[in-house]
This record gives sequence, structure tokens and C-alpha cells, in this order.
Amino acid sequence: MDFAVVRASKPEDCKDVSRMIMDLAIYENMPDQVKISQKELEQDGFSAFPFFHCLVAEVPEEHKSKEGHTTVGYALYFYTYSTWKGRSVFLEDLYVMPEFRGKGIGKALLSKVAAVGKEQQCVRLQFTVLDWNTPSLDFYFSKGAQDLTATEGWHLLRFDGEALDRLANEAPKMNL
Amino acid sequence: MDFAVVRASKPEDCKDVSRMIMDLAIYENMPDQVKISQKELEQDGFSAFPFFHCLVAEVPEEHKSKEGHTTVGYALYFYTYSTWKGRSVFLEDLYVMPEFRGKGIGKALLSKVAAVGKEQQCVRLQFTVLDWNTPSLDFYFSKGAQDLTATEGWHLLRFDGEALDRLANEAPKMNL
Repeated sequence: MDFAVVRASKPEDCKDVSRMIMDLAIYENMPDQVKISQKELEQDGFSAFPFFHCLVAEVPEEHKSKEGHTTVGYALYFYTYSTWKGRSVFLEDLYVMPEFRGKGIGKALLSKVAAVGKEQQCVRLQFTVLDWNTPSLDFYFSKGAQDLTATEGWHLLRFDGEALDRLANEAPKMNL
Repeated sequence: MDFAVVRASKPEDCKDVSRMIMDLAIYENMPDQVKISQKELEQDGFSAFPFFHCLVAEVPEEHKSKEGHTTVGYALYFYTYSTWKGRSVFLEDLYVMPEFRGKGIGKALLSKVAAVGKEQQCVRLQFTVLDWNTPSLDFYFSKGAQDLTATEGWHLLRFDGEALDRLANEAPKMNL
């Protein structure tokens, strides 16, 4: 990577990040799933207790995209915890615009998330990938990632919508 | 649930939580994976920026376990983020001691995590389950959970150990 800079995102990057979140969802064949707006990203990522952190990759003006963008990639992550191993970092999204791929920008974003995690004493970097997304899987495997679903059988489960509401409404009275 | 109370954990609960973390790892056939001690739980869960939150289930003295324990279950969770849907809560562990099962304590812990998440405007409650763990899967499915690995193909990937160190060491210089 010789012309892009990776840096921590600022609130004013949320417009670009929001654009690329939609690009990534289109690639994953689920664009109608995106309900998050630029404004929510600003609120949720830049409060006193942020729900996520984000890095962006930026190219100089002379290398801007066909549509005039200079922010061409992002990595969105947050801290999690393993009760077996301790502090972990979770990579929610890693994305580089198609016309800027093959230049090491994705690798630079991924490496920086790993480095930031290590600074926080994280011992794991985890993320999920769709099983049909062979280019991404190959990229991660080439860097040494293990597939925990394949080797140990971990499945990702979710409550949302009415099922989540029902659960929450059944919560017993308690002191918190 | 008529005799247990679910409450937020305090630093002094970490001894009990640490004991039950090991019990759960034994059930999952991976006891040698547990590297986290009571002291690390105290540090990581009760700092100004905690890496996790935890609920415990407590029974009165007269219902204590054979070995004299009154803290008989726990739910350990943290906040995550979906770039499609927003704030989420992740349930890392949910455990109830065998002699206290079948009394609704697991359900109470799960419901309370859902309720706490909803208070924080979370729209998802996620977690991972081993594919051979039919009792747990059945429990979650009966409450309305979806298996995202089965329906959409999400696989959980991980960098740790030398692979994570290599990644971190390759991080480009950047301003953070």
C-alpha cells in the first residue's frame, strides 16, 4: 500500500461509511437489510460510550474514485470478551471499494484492527463471513484465520423483532 | 422461578462466576481452554470501560447447593453493533448449575439480558451455540431464536496466537 492512509474515523466520516455500508450489503445480496443512517452512526459511534470504533482508508485527491470519493474503505470493530481467553476484538465490517482493491488496503485495515486490539491486550480477532463468499474466506485463510464453525461447530443464533420483545417482556423483576 | 433472584454482578461475584465458567467449559468438552482467572474478570468487567457485563442468579441460603453455593447461574454479555440494524447485545455465556435447572432460572437470566438490551435500544440479541448441543439449541429455538449459520451461511472466523501477532506487526504506520 503506497498511496492510501488508514486512520481512525471522525463523526464527519459517517457519510462515507454509510455509503460503503450500503455497497457492502449490496455485495452480500442483502441491501434491504440496511436500516442504519449516517445520523445513527454518528450517535452510536461517537458518544462517551461508543458502540463501535471505525478506521477509514483515504487516498489523496489525485487518486479519487470515478465518483469523486477519497474515502475508499473502512473497518468497523468493537471489543468483546471471551470467558475462556479474555479481551477480544470483533471485526463487524471490512470493505474496500472495488476500484481500489488489490492494492493492500484491505490488508492494511485488517492489520490495523489487529494492532489496535493487541494494544488493548486482546488475544483474539473474530468476525463472521458468509459461506459462499469464497474471495473473502480465501483472503482471511491466507492470513491464518481459522473457521470455528467448520472445526468446532459454532452456530450464530439471534433473537430479534417480536421474539426479542417477548423475551424482554418476560424478564422478572430484579434489582440492577 | 419462585426462589431465585437475578441481579447485576459485583466484583465480589467473580469467584463464583469463575467457578461456573469452568463448569460450563467442562460441559462443552473444552475445560483446558479456560485461561481467565477471577482476578482478570474483576479487572476486565469492573473498570471505567468494562469489557463485559454480567448477571448472576442467587438462591436463599436454605436452598444452597450441595457444596454450599448460593450463586447458581450467570449470564455474561456485552454490547456489539450491526451496521445494518444498529445496537445489539451479545450473550457470551448463559449457565445454570445442573441441580438448579428446570426451575426457570436460565429463562430468567436470558429474559433479563434481553430486557437490559432493549433498555439500551438494542434490536438484536445474538450468541453462538455448538451444533451438537441439542438441549441448548432446543431451548433457544423454543423461545424464537433463529440459526443464522443454518439459514444464511454465516461462519465464525478467528485470528489468535501467532496469526494475530503477524497481522498486528504488519500494521502500517498511521495516525490514530
